[in-house]
Amino acid sequence: MIVDIINKKRNGQELSYHELDVFFNGYLDGKVKDYQMSSLLMAICIQGMSDEEIFSLTKIFIDSGDVLDLSFLPGVTVDKHSTGGIGDKTTLVIAPIVASLGIPVLKMSGRGLGYTGGTIDKLESIPGFRIDLSDEEVMHQVEDIGIVITGQTASLAPMDKKIYALRDVTGTVSSIPLIASSIMSKKIAAGADKILIDIKVGNGALLQTREEAEKLSELVIKIGKIYQKEVRTIVSDMNIPLGYCIGNSLEVLEAIKILQGNERDNNLTKLCIDLASEMVCMSKGVTKQDAIDMILDSIQSGIAYQKFLELVQAQHGNIDLLSTSKKVKIIKASQSGVIQSISAIELGKLSVSLGAGRTTMEDTIDYGVGLELLKQVGDSVQKGQEILKIYYRKLPSLPDFNHIFLIK
Amino acid sequence: MIVDIINKKRNGQELSYHELDVFFNGYLDGKVKDYQMSSLLMAICIQGMSDEEIFSLTKIFIDSGDVLDLSFLPGVTVDKHSTGGIGDKTTLVIAPIVASLGIPVLKMSGRGLGYTGGTIDKLESIPGFRIDLSDEEVMHQVEDIGIVITGQTASLAPMDKKIYALRDVTGTVSSIPLIASSIMSKKIAAGADKILIDIKVGNGALLQTREEAEKLSELVIKIGKIYQKEVRTIVSDMNIPLGYCIGNSLEVLEAIKILQGNERDNNLTKLCIDLASEMVCMSKGVTKQDAIDMILDSIQSGIAYQKFLELVQAQHGNIDLLSTSKKVKIIKASQSGVIQSISAIELGKLSVSLGAGRTTMEDTIDYGVGLELLKQVGDSVQKGQEILKIYYRKLPSLPDFNHIFLIK
Repeated sequence: MIVDIINKKRNGQELSYHELDVFFNGYLDGKVKDYQMSSLLMAICIQGMSDEEIFSLTKIFIDSGDVLDLSFLPGVTVDKHSTGGIGDKTTLVIAPIVASLGIPVLKMSGRGLGYTGGTIDKLESIPGFRIDLSDEEVMHQVEDIGIVITGQTASLAPMDKKIYALRDVTGTVSSIPLIASSIMSKKIAAGADKILIDIKVGNGALLQTREEAEKLSELVIKIGKIYQKEVRTIVSDMNIPLGYCIGNSLEVLEAIKILQGNERDNNLTKLCIDLASEMVCMSKGVTKQDAIDMILDSIQSGIAYQKFLELVQAQHGNIDLLSTSKKVKIIKASQSGVIQSISAIELGKLSVSLGAGRTTMEDTIDYGVGLELLKQVGDSVQKGQEILKIYYRKLPSLPDFNHIFLIK
Repeated sequence: MIVDIINKKRNGQELSYHELDVFFNGYLDGKVKDYQMSSLLMAICIQGMSDEEIFSLTKIFIDSGDVLDLSFLPGVTVDKHSTGGIGDKTTLVIAPIVASLGIPVLKMSGRGLGYTGGTIDKLESIPGFRIDLSDEEVMHQVEDIGIVITGQTASLAPMDKKIYALRDVTGTVSSIPLIASSIMSKKIAAGADKILIDIKVGNGALLQTREEAEKLSELVIKIGKIYQKEVRTIVSDMNIPLGYCIGNSLEVLEAIKILQGNERDNNLTKLCIDLASEMVCMSKGVTKQDAIDMILDSIQSGIAYQKFLELVQAQHGNIDLLSTSKKVKIIKASQSGVIQSISAIELGKLSVSLGAGRTTMEDTIDYGVGLELLKQVGDSVQKGQEILKIYYRKLPSLPDFNHIFLIK
């Protein structure tokens, strides 16, 4: 009986493959209701899951849909995933770079959830950009130009998709077992040979501590082994926003700046190079330094940006129509000193309240609003100097910026 | 934000009155969804609640509806509640007894949940018996004949009613804080001066250990103090069924037998006398022995049964039409010896599978099916002797009775 399965997990007991299968497939069939699934998910959040249960759940998610066969692509394919952050536009930068080096990139991305942005929302800020490609279109495009970034197609891990939407509104997102099986089922179904996972830690991330990140890292590597997929992880900081911009159009513009070689040596560019070089190493078996040289060369020669434009064109986007709101409010430093920290989570919340993210699954996004940092952590500022630019359509009530920018 | 409240409880933090109020009243308004409520309820089941939170929740439940004013009734009114068991027909016995002694009984009872029966279902097995009286009808009847047993009216603690139905199907029933606030909100709203609570412990009960029962007992007494209501508790065994019968018509017939003085000295009659005498003591301030004498006198003189008949007639029931299924199967002892135990939970499950209880809120009950024990714990039996009578309409697959009746 369905309730007996919930009771078992509530009491901290291990569920068998059969019990998980009955419950989760029952949910997909409509026999198990939303309110029963959320109850079990909460029990999992608090009581945890054994490795065996996590492997079972991952398999059930994968088996709920198709698994793409990418064997027709040349070379070793590498997929990349981020657990989500504030201002994280790394995919927009590294996918074209990696593709420009001849490594096929077939990337299925997600929408923003909670206070974190989503690659798909960012790409949709480019007028006309299609993110709902069919499996067939995806295959053609990656074969044709070596790069495609689309939403998760309906045929891959549909169970995870349904459950993720429920987790977002029931306080059951922050569970390492659930995060691990969700990520890995999608990535395995997407068919790449190898997988790189960027695990974010900090106030603006799902995971708050390094220990949790290590635990997740271990788990995704173990799951990968079962499916003969090499998995590597990078644990990166999410206490301060990545780069200067938060908000959809603004983030695309920032990504373009990096691809054009006009932005360097901030936390975002460093992470992009770290991730991209790891992907190149995994695919081509070159040294880290060789990979970094190839990446910098691709940017300097303009072929990385060229690949980005090809991607936009192939998916019917018109980059010339990309726009931000014309209404702008400037925030100034309330004292002189050095910026010690900039709260990612608070700027994430502000960005959502501007309309750049959703608070319910039904909300629509305003692509033109967002935030632009004019200073970074470590910068010296004078009292009255401009530190933040707010692109708004209708100004929400603003937070106390002394709590967001710590100046000493 | 709603999800932040869920997250807080998931992480084991205390919720404020305001947070509980927003969440639970949001649920009544439809702003908080079933799947969000079940998620919070599961977090409460596992993380618990502080006394302060339990007091807040009880108040929110009470404030969601009306509180009956019983001051027009003579004497001290005493309400009684059982946490639910298998074969528990004590209300059918003690309400008429207590009422026959001049103590007004206004009892709002529930339906069966899980494997436990409900007084309202049992009364409905009497053809014509109305259990959906309005507040006005309830008041008139208790004034008129001194006794009424009805379903919880829609105006009392409606929030608890809505949440209880959800708890039953989401594995969130067995939580002492939720049980305490649910019971006490209903009892306080029902308006009696004093409250007696029969807390069941054992395999056929919500609570499995004496420690949990003591914890619940402490809590309901504390909540009562806040509302100036004296609360007493009795902790009683629910490892073996109460009395001989399980199933709706069968239980009414057994109650009648006791009220007619034709049944004595089993676990059911002892509990009935214990509970009824406690109620008499609480109302009239007499000694326990005096109360017992009054009760036995009421049974022997026939006025207790007379009061039962008045109740049935007032609520339009026709006792002559009460019937059980004519299809009967007899189970015999597989060995000789003394019956060491009879599993309440297993007979409860069998009874539900016969159709005497519900597995979903939409199921209808077959009032005529059920079980009749032909032997009790402590009785000697010979191999082949009849030990159980099954009243069925369509025979389900039967369990191994060697696991239900332990004979040594």
